[in-house]
Amino acid sequence: MRSLVALDWGTSSLRGARLAGDGSVVEERALPRGILTVPPGGFSAVFAAHFGDWMEARGALCLIAGMAGSQQGWLEAPYCPCPAGFDELTQRLAWVEPGRIAIVPGLSVEAGGVPDVMRGEETQVFGALRLLDAQDALIVLPGTHSKWVQVRAGRIESFATLMTGEFYALLRRHSILARTLPAEETELHDALSVGLNNDAFDAGVALALRGASLLHTAFSVRSLALFKRLEPSQAPNYLSGLVIGEDLRSRSLARGSKVVIVGDAGLTQRYARALVQCDVGVQCLGAQATWRGLHEIAMRLPA
Amino acid sequence: MRSLVALDWGTSSLRGARLAGDGSVVEERALPRGILTVPPGGFSAVFAAHFGDWMEARGALCLIAGMAGSQQGWLEAPYCPCPAGFDELTQRLAWVEPGRIAIVPGLSVEAGGVPDVMRGEETQVFGALRLLDAQDALIVLPGTHSKWVQVRAGRIESFATLMTGEFYALLRRHSILARTLPAEETELHDALSVGLNNDAFDAGVALALRGASLLHTAFSVRSLALFKRLEPSQAPNYLSGLVIGEDLRSRSLARGSKVVIVGDAGLTQRYARALVQCDVGVQCLGAQATWRGLHEIAMRLPA
Repeated sequence: MRSLVALDWGTSSLRGARLAGDGSVVEERALPRGILTVPPGGFSAVFAAHFGDWMEARGALCLIAGMAGSQQGWLEAPYCPCPAGFDELTQRLAWVEPGRIAIVPGLSVEAGGVPDVMRGEETQVFGALRLLDAQDALIVLPGTHSKWVQVRAGRIESFATLMTGEFYALLRRHSILARTLPAEETELHDALSVGLNNDAFDAGVALALRGASLLHTAFSVRSLALFKRLEPSQAPNYLSGLVIGEDLRSRSLARGSKVVIVGDAGLTQRYARALVQCDVGVQCLGAQATWRGLHEIAMRLPA
Repeated sequence: MRSLVALDWGTSSLRGARLAGDGSVVEERALPRGILTVPPGGFSAVFAAHFGDWMEARGALCLIAGMAGSQQGWLEAPYCPCPAGFDELTQRLAWVEPGRIAIVPGLSVEAGGVPDVMRGEETQVFGALRLLDAQDALIVLPGTHSKWVQVRAGRIESFATLMTGEFYALLRRHSILARTLPAEETELHDALSVGLNNDAFDAGVALALRGASLLHTAFSVRSLALFKRLEPSQAPNYLSGLVIGEDLRSRSLARGSKVVIVGDAGLTQRYARALVQCDVGVQCLGAQATWRGLHEIAMRLPA
């Protein structure tokens, strides 16, 4: 197979990997050049500056997943409606340079009269399926906007976005609860993933799973602190447990079912720990899923 | 009865009314002197500057509801545990000047191992009960932190705080959804109450009542806008409907039951409209409930 330059070009970051013909990673790069930092018309130059050397290999192919395919990105790759599998993604690639640089489309789904969308996660999901050699799975990709994805017969049947990480950050930084919490130590992207205090986190998850809305449970950060029943140092973990617990409760997971978590180590650890309280089995995968997904798409293209 | 100076001294505002012996309002004042603007030790001076003239009446009594009784207020009035009625509030007044100036205690309640608190709303609730001549009621006081209050046999049995108005403001101002929404036109306090667009609001309420968490439904503001199915001008009302709908759904209201709404006109209108979709009867009261509640407490004090 041709040499593959695999990119994950998101809103706030740009990651790339050079893959060998067998899909193994030869080299990786990460840059703070998310699409929000790129002026209109500037994508070619940013790409050439950071990955031009990799593209010099004879017959090199570049496949890009993520927000680079949005209206504000390099070239719009219209959403592909669910259900969708590798074939649909491959057929609907948006070619920046025919045969050389293409962007993977995101997916859309319609549920109860409301649309939902993803860009980038579809590639992680398909990569995860290959890594697991699975055709059916319930997969969660935790993050600022977590995605819950139902896969059947190798295709993404449906999915839902939950603004879990963003709600945590909003409450942590901008709400009245921020006064109760210690000074912030983390970036938005890692807001849920640093310094896990197990007891406080577990207590937050447990309260959320009992069924009250986050509109109500979030206030307990304040009321518990008022009565000195929650240490300020534990409050961020407790709040993280409340928000992730609300996320899990809303999914109505069947006891004894299995969830695949695809994400960075810190968030994966939190979701895995919270899912124990739901009596749900867990399997975890890291960021290698994106590279594997792009490799699989490349394999389906004509040589 | 003695002349009563009734104050509602909250976090961000200070309102006062001079009441005649029969409870009728002689004069009202509103000042931007919430407790956050008062330096430690400065409460007497602020009080004297704005209400000293009213207190010159022979035998004048001042009763204060709200955050003036908090740890950061004029004098801490420890929370009175539920169930509580007029008698408990009257017995536990915190006297700043014996027989002359007192602060009404807030209430606390314990539910499922988690405390909840209110300060000021208890006085509105008891005032509302008098205005309605009721002993039993389910009352909601919408706001930045909405309170749902269950009253039985004239006493507050339990209550729950929902951060409804604050979640709206967080999403409206600080979340990714803010990019989809038009420039903001309102203050925090009124964030839910301005410019009601019925169709968009109703659609938001309807989606929330179908059962998905706000973590998920909030994202529909973005996805609907992406597909041009939600006008930016309608998005704030749609989001308001989502948040208030989540508030109502979480209360599991019985069809055919009745809810009393106590609050300002704009928010009351929104809750009343949303409650129609729950098949719940509604009765609305305004801010006069605070004055009536303080008048009733004054009536129970020795002359």
